Amino acid sequence: MPDDDFVVTPWRVEGQIDYDRLIEKFGTRRIDAAMLARIEGAAGEGHFMLRRGVFFSHRDLGSILDAHAARRPFFVYTGRGPSGSTHIGHLVPWVFAKWLQDRFGVMVYFQLTDDEKFFAKRDLTLDDTHGLARENALDFVALGFDPKRTRVVIDTRHIRHLYPIAAQVAKHINFSNTRATFGFGGETNIGMIFYTSIQSAMCYIEDAPVLIPLGVDQDPHFRLTRDVAPLIGRPKPALIHNVMMPPLQGAGGKMGSSDPNSAIFTTDTPAEIRKKVNKYAFSGGRPDVAEHRRLGGNPDVDVSYQYLRMFFEPDDARLAEVREAYSSGSMLTGELKSILVERASEYLGAHQQRREEARGGLDGYMMAE
Amino acid sequence: MPDDDFVVTPWRVEGQIDYDRLIEKFGTRRIDAAMLARIEGAAGEGHFMLRRGVFFSHRDLGSILDAHAARRPFFVYTGRGPSGSTHIGHLVPWVFAKWLQDRFGVMVYFQLTDDEKFFAKRDLTLDDTHGLARENALDFVALGFDPKRTRVVIDTRHIRHLYPIAAQVAKHINFSNTRATFGFGGETNIGMIFYTSIQSAMCYIEDAPVLIPLGVDQDPHFRLTRDVAPLIGRPKPALIHNVMMPPLQGAGGKMGSSDPNSAIFTTDTPAEIRKKVNKYAFSGGRPDVAEHRRLGGNPDVDVSYQYLRMFFEPDDARLAEVREAYSSGSMLTGELKSILVERASEYLGAHQQRREEARGGLDGYMMAE
Repeated sequence: MPDDDFVVTPWRVEGQIDYDRLIEKFGTRRIDAAMLARIEGAAGEGHFMLRRGVFFSHRDLGSILDAHAARRPFFVYTGRGPSGSTHIGHLVPWVFAKWLQDRFGVMVYFQLTDDEKFFAKRDLTLDDTHGLARENALDFVALGFDPKRTRVVIDTRHIRHLYPIAAQVAKHINFSNTRATFGFGGETNIGMIFYTSIQSAMCYIEDAPVLIPLGVDQDPHFRLTRDVAPLIGRPKPALIHNVMMPPLQGAGGKMGSSDPNSAIFTTDTPAEIRKKVNKYAFSGGRPDVAEHRRLGGNPDVDVSYQYLRMFFEPDDARLAEVREAYSSGSMLTGELKSILVERASEYLGAHQQRREEARGGLDGYMMAE
Repeated sequence: MPDDDFVVTPWRVEGQIDYDRLIEKFGTRRIDAAMLARIEGAAGEGHFMLRRGVFFSHRDLGSILDAHAARRPFFVYTGRGPSGSTHIGHLVPWVFAKWLQDRFGVMVYFQLTDDEKFFAKRDLTLDDTHGLARENALDFVALGFDPKRTRVVIDTRHIRHLYPIAAQVAKHINFSNTRATFGFGGETNIGMIFYTSIQSAMCYIEDAPVLIPLGVDQDPHFRLTRDVAPLIGRPKPALIHNVMMPPLQGAGGKMGSSDPNSAIFTTDTPAEIRKKVNKYAFSGGRPDVAEHRRLGGNPDVDVSYQYLRMFFEPDDARLAEVREAYSSGSMLTGELKSILVERASEYLGAHQQRREEARGGLDGYMMAE
């Protein structure tokens, strides 16, 4: 993508992402005021991630709301590539999926792509990714999904259900399509090449339309699925895209499982959170206190503020107070960081407790084999 | 392969195959007199398909015989791509696998690649190939395999066992490898590209070395497997190759499921066999009877004789009588065809009875899911 200074693919996110430009490039639709009102109306309430543009773009969300209005069922599917520990960037679409389940009473499928990460990461064995998949699943279950309406799928474990559907999709995707969509070449291994059809298969695990909350970097997979859908007589999956949670360092790209200092992980202790935020979180503050008091900080580039906005502070009034105080200069960067550390420690403390409770009951969430 | 006037790949066999040249091109080893003596010694008897060069080539057969001599176990694997009815060309490696089971007491795995044929054939659905797989399995079971030592595998049904092994292989095969081995290009669908790793997976379904009797057209798959084997710490599969059974028309290529007049199918009636052989079987006879009586026929190009030699006449003495009579001109083409029709009808009549008996017990041969 030589005409842009950012890259967004399922395996690589780099540079300062221009989301307006990304909408244009990917050919998705912005969630505008009318769509926002429509989904809030259907749900009976809003969600802070929608209001604040954390979910900013979609494909065919309207058709899902049409189905719902006509009392036809839909289901929700999201997932995770288990290459390491879970960080809060991963939780964004899952938290939203939980809200969709609560508000619309829908089935939620959660796919753990142990095969994909094995194919993509030279140093990981399939045992590694399978083990990570189970650990990642605990973070998902800890969010409080309804066990009766939730199924966890691990690709290698549930391949009996996925492969025949994946085969239908795979017959209609050729190597050139994957080269154009993912940039694959002669050196790409054949597991990676085939893999996109396994991710597509989840769209047809139930005989109903699917809505997929997902990081926008995963969109290319479902662009292929959407092209194939009419050829196999199935509905196109609908998507709702979230922005990538920025790394603590605040530059371009996204939080990464492979760099422990780039992200807040779900298993971080309060001391670890404090240390990382104080040391690494990019600040929107001024070079010295006097100047900060006089001119105020910039919350739009301040990572601590952004983490509160995107994830840890659902309360609009409290968020507005922080923004006002920081912008006006009455709140210093250190104070803002303390608020983030406190909110994150509180959130993750409770999460970690539910996460451990989930360990014994995980099999109850697994799809039948 | 522009330097030859024949093509041999798993999906295309064309032209008059020069098997000496093929051994050179594929880099396999001829089964020479020493190897023939060695396998006959180990088995305690010979097999007409070995003696007559129907099995003509191998890879690492010696290492399997070494293992057997050291009382280490090996197992046998063969299979079928279910794109249509079974013809006698398909039976060649299966009959040989049965002999291996009888002589060496080994486990035999039989793979039905319903996924492959779905990927390869535009007009076949996965339901079609899965249905054909069950029909083809009847022909296999009808050969009299020991149910305790035989497992039938259908790719989509047993993918839970195959996929994790296939993934290990797939990680070490890239698109360029499949282009070089199979001639794949940008237009090849990603199911086809991945598929070779599913076929490879069967080599590691047991923790022992494998011997694969197979049509030489399938060799390219296992060339890839053999390249990957040391990278995943597993033994290279050993292969024993049979020549392709020529079509009734006798020109180049092989019998084809898609052309009912090119092959004798296992479900053909005596009347159908007679009609096909009389109408289509390429003759090595002379243009008129007088000339035939004077100069004799050519059994080496006569398809009826070749079918007797390769499949329907295990008795060397009786085959030699036919050869002598036909070569000397005392036997006319019509008489030779009658012998083939009689032997084929007799063989297939008994086969069809066992085939129907197998229908009820097929599940007893299936690998556990």
